[in-house]
Amino acid sequence: MRKLEAHRAKTLIRNTAVSLLNPRRQSSSSSSSSYYYTSRLARFFTSLPSDASMASDNSTPPITVESLNPKVLKCEYAVRGEIVSLAQKLQQDLQANPGSHPFEEILYCNIGNPQSLGQQPITFFREVLALCDHPTILDKSETQGLFSADSIERAWQILDQIPGRATGAYSHSQGIKGLRDTIAAGIEARDGFPADPNDIFLTDGASPAVHMMMQLLIRSENDGIFCPIPQYPLYSASIALHGGTLVPYYLDEATGWGLEISELKKQLETARQKGITVRALVVINPGNPTGQVLAEENQRDIVEFCKKEGLVLLADEVYQENIYVPEKQFHSFKKVSRSMGYGDKDIPLVSFQSVSKGYYGECGKRGGYMEVTGFSPEVREQIYKVASVNLCSNISGQILASLVMSPPNVGDESYESYFAEKDGILQSLARRAKKLEDGLNNLEGVTCNKAEGAMYLFPRIRLPNKAIKEAESLKKAPDAYYATRLLNATGIVVVPGSGFGQVPGTWHFRCTILPQEEKIPAIVSRWTEFHQKFMDEFRD
Amino acid sequence: MRKLEAHRAKTLIRNTAVSLLNPRRQSSSSSSSSYYYTSRLARFFTSLPSDASMASDNSTPPITVESLNPKVLKCEYAVRGEIVSLAQKLQQDLQANPGSHPFEEILYCNIGNPQSLGQQPITFFREVLALCDHPTILDKSETQGLFSADSIERAWQILDQIPGRATGAYSHSQGIKGLRDTIAAGIEARDGFPADPNDIFLTDGASPAVHMMMQLLIRSENDGIFCPIPQYPLYSASIALHGGTLVPYYLDEATGWGLEISELKKQLETARQKGITVRALVVINPGNPTGQVLAEENQRDIVEFCKKEGLVLLADEVYQENIYVPEKQFHSFKKVSRSMGYGDKDIPLVSFQSVSKGYYGECGKRGGYMEVTGFSPEVREQIYKVASVNLCSNISGQILASLVMSPPNVGDESYESYFAEKDGILQSLARRAKKLEDGLNNLEGVTCNKAEGAMYLFPRIRLPNKAIKEAESLKKAPDAYYATRLLNATGIVVVPGSGFGQVPGTWHFRCTILPQEEKIPAIVSRWTEFHQKFMDEFRD
Repeated sequence: MRKLEAHRAKTLIRNTAVSLLNPRRQSSSSSSSSYYYTSRLARFFTSLPSDASMASDNSTPPITVESLNPKVLKCEYAVRGEIVSLAQKLQQDLQANPGSHPFEEILYCNIGNPQSLGQQPITFFREVLALCDHPTILDKSETQGLFSADSIERAWQILDQIPGRATGAYSHSQGIKGLRDTIAAGIEARDGFPADPNDIFLTDGASPAVHMMMQLLIRSENDGIFCPIPQYPLYSASIALHGGTLVPYYLDEATGWGLEISELKKQLETARQKGITVRALVVINPGNPTGQVLAEENQRDIVEFCKKEGLVLLADEVYQENIYVPEKQFHSFKKVSRSMGYGDKDIPLVSFQSVSKGYYGECGKRGGYMEVTGFSPEVREQIYKVASVNLCSNISGQILASLVMSPPNVGDESYESYFAEKDGILQSLARRAKKLEDGLNNLEGVTCNKAEGAMYLFPRIRLPNKAIKEAESLKKAPDAYYATRLLNATGIVVVPGSGFGQVPGTWHFRCTILPQEEKIPAIVSRWTEFHQKFMDEFRD
Repeated sequence: MRKLEAHRAKTLIRNTAVSLLNPRRQSSSSSSSSYYYTSRLARFFTSLPSDASMASDNSTPPITVESLNPKVLKCEYAVRGEIVSLAQKLQQDLQANPGSHPFEEILYCNIGNPQSLGQQPITFFREVLALCDHPTILDKSETQGLFSADSIERAWQILDQIPGRATGAYSHSQGIKGLRDTIAAGIEARDGFPADPNDIFLTDGASPAVHMMMQLLIRSENDGIFCPIPQYPLYSASIALHGGTLVPYYLDEATGWGLEISELKKQLETARQKGITVRALVVINPGNPTGQVLAEENQRDIVEFCKKEGLVLLADEVYQENIYVPEKQFHSFKKVSRSMGYGDKDIPLVSFQSVSKGYYGECGKRGGYMEVTGFSPEVREQIYKVASVNLCSNISGQILASLVMSPPNVGDESYESYFAEKDGILQSLARRAKKLEDGLNNLEGVTCNKAEGAMYLFPRIRLPNKAIKEAESLKKAPDAYYATRLLNATGIVVVPGSGFGQVPGTWHFRCTILPQEEKIPAIVSRWTEFHQKFMDEFRD
């Protein structure tokens, strides 16, 4: 009976609503005044309880978190997670009330973002970008006084590679052909093996390229992608967003984050027994968050393993310029596979590169590329199609990607200053890595492998049981608890190891080596002081 | 018996392969010579037929088109499809052998890419971008002679909004806060209603923003997104990539591509009967490919419909500056819904904007934003999380998005030249639209609605049965056949209507209004000549 009444009321309200809300049914006039009348009524209807609202019985339920794509809900990205939100809050506090915390500034060691911590851009690169953004100044006399001769020449060269010199036009969906030629030449010079500009896909940083490959390869949760643990959380996030399964292989901390083929074999076997089709192997070299640089011998074994098991090799090589120890060198997986005799068609291999890392650190420019080899023309066509849906990557990022693969040469006007800037940054990063590594290794219960490359240290911390219990009582991962305490006490932002994955029962954090060099001693001493107190508080 | 022999052969080869390919099993030496030996053998094995290959029995099958993500295979994007590949081929022909075709150049009318057809960028915007790219010239004396005073001032303002003035750093994942403040102020000035910088998400053009919303809303093929037919194929592509269902609503060509609420109701009912949960309604205003501008009255009906049916309103408003007829004005859906009395929490609404369109046409810069209102804080957090996985959009695009929402003001040094450039472009676009529209309407069997806005005409063509049969015999859609013939005869590239969707049995094509104005008469006459011959060939 109550149901019937409710139904009648609803029908009445609905009919009224329809006639009032659709003035065309009321009168032939479409004056705006009838709409203002309507709008007041609309307000009335929207304030009715939902049971009596004007919505039809089967209207779509409202958008709630629970009704979102579960793949999105599953996705996590620790590098910009909870700890960073807390850091932003503290920063606002400090701005509003200087002195409100026991530190003067927030030190963002959570993310490889060099210029945010004061690293200056490479002058030559910025000169060329500015000239390409505003080419009408290229032939003005004042420009000679402001820009180097070779940056002007390079800008002309680049403009001539762009159809109609239109730096504001969408480009070919793989990127401007002339820039891809330059990049291919740079790869050839680096590797000593041919590179084809048609294999290059320019992208807005490396992240969209990684997403594109995941989108292509993952059909369902039965498809697996092999990832190192610890891994850069872009991979776990992208695999989650595309509905696949992350198949882990553990790097061996005891051997400097070594990548053991026996571990790959074991994990592959386990995954296959679970019915997972493992489609690709992600290798990050130099490592993120681990900072290790693979030996060429190890890389050969990996190539062989991928070949044998039919895996696409996804080589994250964005830290290729970031090597800090004389005994290690970067070798691209393409060079390694070619030197083993594998040709263009023998092994599906994707190499990711970015302008965000290296000595350039141009994160905000969102430039990057992937070099895609070893796929059939039909598969390549599908990759091109996906790239074309987003039209193209940003042209400044494209230009910058060509510049980092073809910087000034000996004899160019900019060469000396360019080299001084580059060398200064890399030498300083090496010193910072060492100082932080030493500082961390001096902390009670902390062991830190060498940062051979990349921009990170990933120390292990043996937390006292009491600290672990305290974290658990606060429903926090123990490493997240440590990181939060560290932030609150010192302003230093690091990412808990749980965001990257770690051997169960071990705890780590990732810390960049990017703070300005003169700040490192103070950072180490603040950290040491905090750590001693923390351990005193919780020591078992 | 043959099977057994094959198995024995495989086992033998595998064992040999494993021992040869893993030199550590051969000897304790890891000299590179053993690797070169291996590499020659590797070449041998890869040339074996697959049956006898070294792959283990359960190795992952090779990557073929059939084994890719079926959502990727399903996705289509006609704007850069087959016809454009043909155009690129013809262009290469013309470069290699001038005179090899009955035209001198390819006219890309397939894509809204103004600067590729000669439109010049707005000087003020490019000045600011160049200065932000290379800020060290800001206080040099020569800079005063090269750049306007207000571009220098604006660059300083923008740099001061960027933490550490670091234009090369990753920004907040929604974009630099100060730039979002500027954009919010621009939206307020446009609409007369408040805008919150925290509602702005800066993106690399509008496309990634559209993908982000699809990713959030689509759970399975049972989730539907309402799209106009004809539609901009980004929507069909994105829905396919995310595995949802496109629920069509047909625009009424007879009433100038009118959007009828009765059609929405009918199609919604049909979709719901099929078990589809329709989650969102896409409206493109001004229309792409149709060029119509919605009347405010119509927009109110749409808002009411979304409110009543619980749909997210996805408002593609990237052509908001492209209006060519005095009787029409752009009204944002946010303004319309606020003027109806709906507040911030009453209706989930996303407005997409891009630097690629308007009078600026900066497609290559990949700047844009979405303004997201009416979602719960929990849902907003999920949107932020997805944005954060890609770190941030490119900073030049972010700066440009702030500039198009806050161009020079009356009294600024650049104002007059800025206004002359802007007005010149928009006036010329209006004239070009009219001339092309008239030209198309003069063709036998072609009717073309007015381009009230956007950058396109979407004429209907009544093809003779003989032409349709000819197309069918070539396994081509009749409109694709016409477009191919047109391209081969004239060099004009248009996109067949089948790429956008159309009422079954009708045929259309999309043609941009972007060729340079002085070329339009020649285009019309070439097209007319071709069309007459085509009709003569096929007339029933």
